[in-house]
Amino acid sequence: MPTSELRCSPAPPLPAEADHEEWVWPQIKAEARRDAEAEPALASYLYSTILSHSSLERSLSFHLANKLCSSTLLSTLLYDLFLNTFSTDPSLRSATVADLRAARFRDPACVSFSHCLLNYKGFLACQAHRVANKLWTESRRPLALALQSRISDVFAVDMHPAAKIGKGILFDHATGVVVGETAVIGNNVSILHHVTLGGTGKVGGDRHPKIGDGVLIGAGATILGNVRIGEGAKIGAGSLVLIDVPPRTTVVGNPARLVGGKDTPATHEDVPGESMDHTSFISDYII
Amino acid sequence: MPTSELRCSPAPPLPAEADHEEWVWPQIKAEARRDAEAEPALASYLYSTILSHSSLERSLSFHLANKLCSSTLLSTLLYDLFLNTFSTDPSLRSATVADLRAARFRDPACVSFSHCLLNYKGFLACQAHRVANKLWTESRRPLALALQSRISDVFAVDMHPAAKIGKGILFDHATGVVVGETAVIGNNVSILHHVTLGGTGKVGGDRHPKIGDGVLIGAGATILGNVRIGEGAKIGAGSLVLIDVPPRTTVVGNPARLVGGKDTPATHEDVPGESMDHTSFISDYII
Amino acid sequence: MPTSELRCSPAPPLPAEADHEEWVWPQIKAEARRDAEAEPALASYLYSTILSHSSLERSLSFHLANKLCSSTLLSTLLYDLFLNTFSTDPSLRSATVADLRAARFRDPACVSFSHCLLNYKGFLACQAHRVANKLWTESRRPLALALQSRISDVFAVDMHPAAKIGKGILFDHATGVVVGETAVIGNNVSILHHVTLGGTGKVGGDRHPKIGDGVLIGAGATILGNVRIGEGAKIGAGSLVLIDVPPRTTVVGNPARLVGGKDTPATHEDVPGESMDHTSFISDYII
Amino acid sequence: MPTSELRCSPAPPLPAEADHEEWVWPQIKAEARRDAEAEPALASYLYSTILSHSSLERSLSFHLANKLCSSTLLSTLLYDLFLNTFSTDPSLRSATVADLRAARFRDPACVSFSHCLLNYKGFLACQAHRVANKLWTESRRPLALALQSRISDVFAVDMHPAAKIGKGILFDHATGVVVGETAVIGNNVSILHHVTLGGTGKVGGDRHPKIGDGVLIGAGATILGNVRIGEGAKIGAGSLVLIDVPPRTTVVGNPARLVGGKDTPATHEDVPGESMDHTSFISDYII
Amino acid sequence: MPTSELRCSPAPPLPAEADHEEWVWPQIKAEARRDAEAEPALASYLYSTILSHSSLERSLSFHLANKLCSSTLLSTLLYDLFLNTFSTDPSLRSATVADLRAARFRDPACVSFSHCLLNYKGFLACQAHRVANKLWTESRRPLALALQSRISDVFAVDMHPAAKIGKGILFDHATGVVVGETAVIGNNVSILHHVTLGGTGKVGGDRHPKIGDGVLIGAGATILGNVRIGEGAKIGAGSLVLIDVPPRTTVVGNPARLVGGKDTPATHEDVPGESMDHTSFISDYII
Amino acid sequence: MPTSELRCSPAPPLPAEADHEEWVWPQIKAEARRDAEAEPALASYLYSTILSHSSLERSLSFHLANKLCSSTLLSTLLYDLFLNTFSTDPSLRSATVADLRAARFRDPACVSFSHCLLNYKGFLACQAHRVANKLWTESRRPLALALQSRISDVFAVDMHPAAKIGKGILFDHATGVVVGETAVIGNNVSILHHVTLGGTGKVGGDRHPKIGDGVLIGAGATILGNVRIGEGAKIGAGSLVLIDVPPRTTVVGNPARLVGGKDTPATHEDVPGESMDHTSFISDYII
Repeated sequence: MPTSELRCSPAPPLPAEADHEEWVWPQIKAEARRDAEAEPALASYLYSTILSHSSLERSLSFHLANKLCSSTLLSTLLYDLFLNTFSTDPSLRSATVADLRAARFRDPACVSFSHCLLNYKGFLACQAHRVANKLWTESRRPLALALQSRISDVFAVDMHPAAKIGKGILFDHATGVVVGETAVIGNNVSILHHVTLGGTGKVGGDRHPKIGDGVLIGAGATILGNVRIGEGAKIGAGSLVLIDVPPRTTVVGNPARLVGGKDTPATHEDVPGESMDHTSFISDYII
Repeated sequence: MPTSELRCSPAPPLPAEADHEEWVWPQIKAEARRDAEAEPALASYLYSTILSHSSLERSLSFHLANKLCSSTLLSTLLYDLFLNTFSTDPSLRSATVADLRAARFRDPACVSFSHCLLNYKGFLACQAHRVANKLWTESRRPLALALQSRISDVFAVDMHPAAKIGKGILFDHATGVVVGETAVIGNNVSILHHVTLGGTGKVGGDRHPKIGDGVLIGAGATILGNVRIGEGAKIGAGSLVLIDVPPRTTVVGNPARLVGGKDTPATHEDVPGESMDHTSFISDYII
Repeated sequence: MPTSELRCSPAPPLPAEADHEEWVWPQIKAEARRDAEAEPALASYLYSTILSHSSLERSLSFHLANKLCSSTLLSTLLYDLFLNTFSTDPSLRSATVADLRAARFRDPACVSFSHCLLNYKGFLACQAHRVANKLWTESRRPLALALQSRISDVFAVDMHPAAKIGKGILFDHATGVVVGETAVIGNNVSILHHVTLGGTGKVGGDRHPKIGDGVLIGAGATILGNVRIGEGAKIGAGSLVLIDVPPRTTVVGNPARLVGGKDTPATHEDVPGESMDHTSFISDYII
Repeated sequence: MPTSELRCSPAPPLPAEADHEEWVWPQIKAEARRDAEAEPALASYLYSTILSHSSLERSLSFHLANKLCSSTLLSTLLYDLFLNTFSTDPSLRSATVADLRAARFRDPACVSFSHCLLNYKGFLACQAHRVANKLWTESRRPLALALQSRISDVFAVDMHPAAKIGKGILFDHATGVVVGETAVIGNNVSILHHVTLGGTGKVGGDRHPKIGDGVLIGAGATILGNVRIGEGAKIGAGSLVLIDVPPRTTVVGNPARLVGGKDTPATHEDVPGESMDHTSFISDYII
Repeated sequence: MPTSELRCSPAPPLPAEADHEEWVWPQIKAEARRDAEAEPALASYLYSTILSHSSLERSLSFHLANKLCSSTLLSTLLYDLFLNTFSTDPSLRSATVADLRAARFRDPACVSFSHCLLNYKGFLACQAHRVANKLWTESRRPLALALQSRISDVFAVDMHPAAKIGKGILFDHATGVVVGETAVIGNNVSILHHVTLGGTGKVGGDRHPKIGDGVLIGAGATILGNVRIGEGAKIGAGSLVLIDVPPRTTVVGNPARLVGGKDTPATHEDVPGESMDHTSFISDYII
Repeated sequence: MPTSELRCSPAPPLPAEADHEEWVWPQIKAEARRDAEAEPALASYLYSTILSHSSLERSLSFHLANKLCSSTLLSTLLYDLFLNTFSTDPSLRSATVADLRAARFRDPACVSFSHCLLNYKGFLACQAHRVANKLWTESRRPLALALQSRISDVFAVDMHPAAKIGKGILFDHATGVVVGETAVIGNNVSILHHVTLGGTGKVGGDRHPKIGDGVLIGAGATILGNVRIGEGAKIGAGSLVLIDVPPRTTVVGNPARLVGGKDTPATHEDVPGESMDHTSFISDYII
């Protein structure tokens, strides 16, 4: 029996991307309603997190506030903060929907949008980071840093609030991800767990990686310094990358080397961050 | 002074394995009673988690429920769920006892069974996973996925509920372990922290590693794809493994290579997952 | 615009090191007061964690107790434990101040002492570890192990309470750090996230690394066995180290090799743990 | 507009009393389902307290455990205690159903059985008292007394666990009710808030009131000593009663006097505890 | 020394009543700021409840949500509910300000507006009741009843959500107050603790007291049935009232009688609910 | 069978009163140890509240902090406050012991000192009030008032922090007790539930009752105004008292009258607050 049958449901036929923002919230509610009916033990959870809310922003604010609160940072305070931020910046909603879409269509283990919204710590950390980033740009830095700390405690994802992150991002599994202060991540990027976008030392300034659109970064990869990972590049799992990587090429190993060689590197599809092919490119890996 | 003297107590003389299930619960209570008497500040904790309970299943259900609960998934709900599952499936109890035994006899830092029961997040994550896996097989998938999410938040161990895991498993330290949907782990396996048994991309189906009985996987190893790690193989710390590994051989490095060479690989003892020798096999490692 | 402008404030002019212990607490309060005035949403948090307390020990005990408590280990119990330990051992205070200083002056993302005190999980895990270590040396081992477990759950930092750790330590980002029972870490060491100081197998005894003063260990490095990392050595990110490393040399790779070669290794500054240069030494890394 | 129209729904047509125990749980679930559909903001609460449970005992145990728990008496412990007690003593279930029936049919403000189950602190205090009483009779007195204390803290209803209480009891509003150690309350009794069934002093022994079947005790009445309140008697609001009251008579005032006079007291219906007529009998009250 | 010196501060000179709504929130913040400066241990509480909020509605919603929440009715849900209700009905704000004014100027123990806002359970119960009443009138009855139940558990004040309550109400001490479904309370009424406005039996319909403007009801008074308490009447402490009371008269005793006699009752000032004279009128009380 | 046999244990033979302070804490621990052994379900509670503590002050501070904390007033803050206050004022400890003694020897339902310490809300409210009173006298009034509010919420006992209360006080059942700002209560007084020591109106100054040594006040009695209740007086349950009561006399009724008549009042034993005879004095009560 193919394991794909284990999946809860096939991906639904979808509207054009432009319509997604209107479409996804009713879809999430429909999923949650179906699950609540099938599983009474989970119904209370589904009603409190999704079904009692009138919008995706409210649901997400509620869920994040209850996840990230502590005895000294109350859920009501965080709820207010998230709701105000999500409500006043429509670009955040658009990014949230793109991220939901990214998880749903790139990760075969993601059985529904509501599954991602409720359970994906990479997704949740990323949404909370966007709020922290907005606070940072508004010079509300101590609050942004407190939020970063809670995200790191709760989700084991440590992203500096100054880091700039695009839309359509998948942080898969997400545990252990570290993203430094001056890092930039483009659109439609997929990043696995234990990935570090780190700095180079104690000197401040622009010192973290710049990740181009469509990049795929495998589990445990470490990228250090103000290096540029070109659009559509693939970074193999466990790689250590310290210099620039050309667009649409693949690097593997510690230290990382170009697949196909430095002078005639192999190139591939445009958006591996979406196609998510982690291993075929490393056909020359042998034991 | 040899550091072994730092250990709280020598491993007790043990009954034959078959009798362990009867024997281990009274032993745990005896350990907890001794500790409660010696340390009044911990007595309340030991009574609530162990000494007030009439069975290992109840103690474990209580402890997991209080660890994994959240403001939207109440401890009473989880307690009910765990207790019902552990009570109706005797194989779960048997697996729990085998895991306790694995930690106690393979990890020299494990000073007692109660130490493992209370404090080992790898052990606790694994027991909770078994419940999630049972829910998954009963088609209670949204609940299984919610449980996976809580395990990942609380223990930083992300195991898909569909993954099949044997008995006598040690997840040592455990932080950052990722186990994918179609992964299978045999019996008497030891897996260190930051280990990934990951997939290969966005296509569903059978796409995760199959780990044979008795395998030992070192810290930070990454194994991707539907590859087979033969019985009794050792995977060196930090290795990246993308193809099959023969039984009773050792692989090291990124990319991983067979110790002794591809054609004449060195072979070793049958169950490194139990003997836990992490480094002697890599005598050819040099600086 | 240089990103260094993103930093909240330049490092203040400092008194001589000897005066730091007196100086740092008023400085932390001044920082917190400034932040509370600028950000009313955070003022409650800053008052409860810092501004309502009469000493650094009280503030730290309060903060750790509220971070590490659980439904079965109450905050009041932990507060008592932390406060009693910090109050009766002045060397702990001295180590705390040295660690605050380490974060403030080595990590360009650390904008203030209060930022480190409140938000750095590596700093908090290390202070809690020192209490666990003290309990261990006083033969209060079950309590020390319970504390280790809570630190690992909450901060994803797993340090055996018997491990000996010096002063002026920076655990940067910290997620996934594992430090074994017989490990020793000297003074002025900097350790990035996902670093393992692990053992070699199931045999007890002295089996974990000894890290000399001033060492810098990059992200994801794995050091296994009773090996000695000489004073001022640098361990490159992602390295796997299984044998001794000479003082003031650099090792990189999996398996790790000496930069400059085994016979004529390059040497460098005395205290890379303070200078924090992660990448310049690996000029020979190429793709 | 008559205020009776304010009531949510008319009392449903009912089966014969003997069938109530089978009938009431499905009825409660139907009510909760209707309310959850009409009010999404309450659905999570209704699912967690009622709709996710398979029996009245489980629902009640869950609800009481979450109401009465504290940081030192965990909800999981109380849940276990309540569930075990309700499951092993069928007479408790029968009494619970009779009490639900009492509230539903005597209190015009009680709009449904689920309303009583969830919201009536007199009902909840009485069910928890029955568990405390059972513990008391099993000589588990410290636990019974701890439960009494929690009931008094949470519901402001202080009933000694030794007090014997019949079935079909309505504690209306309930705040401030005090019932002493040797008090006995018969069946089908209705007791308003601030009622005291108190003792006479520091001497132990049988020193509290005995309340006959069908008695109605008005708000704020104080009955002291081992006095007998005859079957079907009415005790007027605010009365102070220190001597026996004959069956089916009414007493009023401070000190209480028989309506109709000591020698020719007026008598009335058999079960005022059910008919709940608080005021018509005091027609001679004047200003 | 006159005890009046014990009061924290004299009542401030006040603007005209019409300006109160604008004036009171800055005044509350000024009081809280003064207290936070003088008492660091309370500053966190004052910032979270008052100083971090931008309006009285937000502060009150936050405070009520955190007071009334439970493990099954989360603070975030209640906060949303309160904030939405207070924001959409300006008459609620006006009533809140009138109640603050009532406490501040009638109760000599009320040292500031913030003291009332934070600490007066009668005030808080009344504001939460107004929300429950609004829900009731919007036919959201199950939610209104759940709120009533929480108010009764937390504050020991049991007010049916259908009860109509005016503005400028002081519930002093408040423990044990019971107000029935069809009760109506006018404006500028003062009601002490243990007061019951109760019904007459099991028959529905209009069955609870109607309290005129300016009435003063002493501690422990019980008023039963659809009786009319005329404007400006005084009900003596401990009275039992079962029939109408004429305006501006006083009744005392159990059963209550008119001071001055039924035919020539003494009359008094117009608004005893504001002048709060509890005892001078009962000059004929003797021992 | 006499119900006195229901009591858990006879009062132990006692040392002379002067030695009580030394004797009571070991006695409480012995009781708790016995109960923990007999009832494992309660052992965790008993260890956390009593057996893990080194002194009565610590145990009481811990218990009060966990009872009175809220989401905005953390248990760690309250613990600190209670412990500091109890530790620095030995007279508080002496009063606590006298109150424990009062409950143990006057209330036949009080089976042990630990029963009172853990479960008597009147005892706990009184100890917390003493701390509030000390804060008040030190001009830390906002904190004192916040504490009063928590005591009123949690225990339904509302005592103004300025009220002066002697030693050896029993608040039996305690729900609904109200004690005003300028009230004074002497030593060895017993006060039942629903008792009000109230003021007379909106004018400040000395306006509350003064209760002499050894007085007994029955349930529901209301005493209003700056009246003097002479030493050893008894106030009957439900009485309304508005003028002075001579020493060693008894008053009953609403309004209260002297038993024996105004001119030749009956007198009785010196300390009814200790003998606790509630009813024999009212032999002339009739129906």
